[in-house]
Amino acid sequence: MKRILLFISTLMLCAMSSLAQEAIFNRNDLTSPEVNADGTVTFRLYAPKAITVEVQGDFLQNGKAAMKEENGLWTYTSESLAPELYSYHFVVNGIDMLDPSSVYHTRDITTFNNFFIVTRNKGDVGDLYSVNEVPHGDVHKVWYDSPTLGMKRRMTVYTPAGYDKGEKYPVLYLFHGAGGDEEAWTTLGRAAQILDNLIATGKAKPMIVVMPNGNMNAQAAAGEWSKGMYKPSFMQHVSDPVPTKSMEESFPDIQKYVESHYNVLKNRQNRAVAGLSMGGGHTYAVSKQYPGNFDYIGLFSAAILYGINANFMDVNLQSLQADQTLSRQIDALKAAKPKLYWIGIGNTDFLYNINKDYRSYLDGKQFPYEYYESEGGHIWRNWRLYLTIFAQKVFK
Amino acid sequence: MKRILLFISTLMLCAMSSLAQEAIFNRNDLTSPEVNADGTVTFRLYAPKAITVEVQGDFLQNGKAAMKEENGLWTYTSESLAPELYSYHFVVNGIDMLDPSSVYHTRDITTFNNFFIVTRNKGDVGDLYSVNEVPHGDVHKVWYDSPTLGMKRRMTVYTPAGYDKGEKYPVLYLFHGAGGDEEAWTTLGRAAQILDNLIATGKAKPMIVVMPNGNMNAQAAAGEWSKGMYKPSFMQHVSDPVPTKSMEESFPDIQKYVESHYNVLKNRQNRAVAGLSMGGGHTYAVSKQYPGNFDYIGLFSAAILYGINANFMDVNLQSLQADQTLSRQIDALKAAKPKLYWIGIGNTDFLYNINKDYRSYLDGKQFPYEYYESEGGHIWRNWRLYLTIFAQKVFK
Repeated sequence: MKRILLFISTLMLCAMSSLAQEAIFNRNDLTSPEVNADGTVTFRLYAPKAITVEVQGDFLQNGKAAMKEENGLWTYTSESLAPELYSYHFVVNGIDMLDPSSVYHTRDITTFNNFFIVTRNKGDVGDLYSVNEVPHGDVHKVWYDSPTLGMKRRMTVYTPAGYDKGEKYPVLYLFHGAGGDEEAWTTLGRAAQILDNLIATGKAKPMIVVMPNGNMNAQAAAGEWSKGMYKPSFMQHVSDPVPTKSMEESFPDIQKYVESHYNVLKNRQNRAVAGLSMGGGHTYAVSKQYPGNFDYIGLFSAAILYGINANFMDVNLQSLQADQTLSRQIDALKAAKPKLYWIGIGNTDFLYNINKDYRSYLDGKQFPYEYYESEGGHIWRNWRLYLTIFAQKVFK
Repeated sequence: MKRILLFISTLMLCAMSSLAQEAIFNRNDLTSPEVNADGTVTFRLYAPKAITVEVQGDFLQNGKAAMKEENGLWTYTSESLAPELYSYHFVVNGIDMLDPSSVYHTRDITTFNNFFIVTRNKGDVGDLYSVNEVPHGDVHKVWYDSPTLGMKRRMTVYTPAGYDKGEKYPVLYLFHGAGGDEEAWTTLGRAAQILDNLIATGKAKPMIVVMPNGNMNAQAAAGEWSKGMYKPSFMQHVSDPVPTKSMEESFPDIQKYVESHYNVLKNRQNRAVAGLSMGGGHTYAVSKQYPGNFDYIGLFSAAILYGINANFMDVNLQSLQADQTLSRQIDALKAAKPKLYWIGIGNTDFLYNINKDYRSYLDGKQFPYEYYESEGGHIWRNWRLYLTIFAQKVFK
């Protein structure tokens, strides 16, 4: 013990002297953000030479708030916030920058933000998105073979706590949106935390969650394959080059890998598929391509990948009804009787009307589905919520 | 195909209009950094209102260089750089910020930098640190039980390409330094890329690499366990609270998990241990605590965790020679005849003299070791190099 303490004090001294120039130590001793007991959040930035400092965040009425300065220290304390995961950054003299006192970042395509979580009670969404003192699942970045696409591809696999005891588990296949990659659901999506917490409290069945890369011309996330350290963009992976095969054509490669490498229950009762935006389109396509393969299907703010020559933004009840292939596929899916076809969307989502028309189309077919409408737009706050809801409905 | 193209063009339009306010799209179309064919690197920042913009990087003679402005676009092109992984950030009006055109960051404790890699030829260090078109190993974040420390703990495990074919593999246990965590070797350390590339070219044997968390009072990296989203600091995990047990006392929990969960060869010929700085101290301690357990031992810029009441910065030949416990342990380790005891350090490292005295001590014991001295100090550039060298020497 004495030894350890001496080691510490000595390294502390080193840190303050000879090593400082190597910039491997804390640059400041500020705490920011600080989530206070009353749900307010205090932000701090030491910037004595700055002229204006603002905090920009998704919890602010106008998106932005001015910070106040005293002796070079800029501070801002928010109103009391509802439980949620929130994002922010600072704007110093008009320039966006991350909070140097926080190491917690999220990336959405090329945009980085800091984030923090407000929790009030056990079981609220803040608590569900946090790492709690519960058994944790493992997260694997694995390379699977896709003969259909002619490449090895990277995906993220969550195995629940206790997986090593040898039991077999159901599988949820979970797709990201355009601009995302196989990292998206475990970073912005907090999928591992949501599953850990729902499973620990008995609200969801222990399950494996498979999060493939939905960009069919890429092997992996930017920087994780041989294309090099390129700059990702919103639709780059979909357009440049145009992929040779679709998600629905190549999906069997994913399922084959999962069912041969993990202890999984290999039947429709134990297979679910869900995805957000473009990944909602993948879910729509894969589920109708393979009727009887999945008992649980979840479309989160889905871009309905409508075929033939229609522009998917022009999808409407008439164009859906005119599509004979779609009609046959939806009839086949209906006949296969999946236990759950779940559609969730925000009331200000730009895909709201398309989803509304798609629901009308399904109504016309007397195709049963569950519908969930939330506040807000095409944002991760909704997708975390939809995963939370959907995960509690599957495999039961 | 037509369908996909229409999907793309439509989403592109959406991106430019209604969705822009959600900030999920590229903020600019600049490429920065751009590694040019001649090894120079061009940095770009669009900042029309900025007064001064500098690039700060470990490849610059004075650490910093002024960028030049034209129509609001600031640029700087470096000299031709030797193959290496380099770090940088911008300084705008005196304020540090990351390059908004690059998504490639590294974190060292609380300090973020952008990074890029310069490669000139196949097999140079730039190439070794890059993701190439070679078979890739999988990377797992797993939770193991440590009864000794009374907690479940998270670690990173690399399994080589082809691992799923059922063969058994040797294991390298690889420790990080103070302030680091179980993420360090696969981020700053590029361990997965180094191993992928060395294995693909036959320079290293396929092996499993186990990267535990060396902070004995923590379950996992900051934000990945129930302590919440705290701010990490250089020695926090070593000091607050002081851990109840040491790495050498709890190491058997790690080995037990690995040997019961992975296809591993369970003998000394197929066990190696190495680590950097504090992790070099862990390597020093674990290897002498368990003589005969490892045939390959690597001390990278090691903090020799010298016992009794000595301050480890005061370690010298005399204090080492006066330690009877150390003498017995080193005698036992010598008698166990490990195949390799490798010591690497930079010629300006603050631990250089201590390592020199430790080598003198080993010389006095006629304890055989290999010694490698590189340029520079206590930095990741050296630790990536040492891993590259060490990985080629083990299990052969």
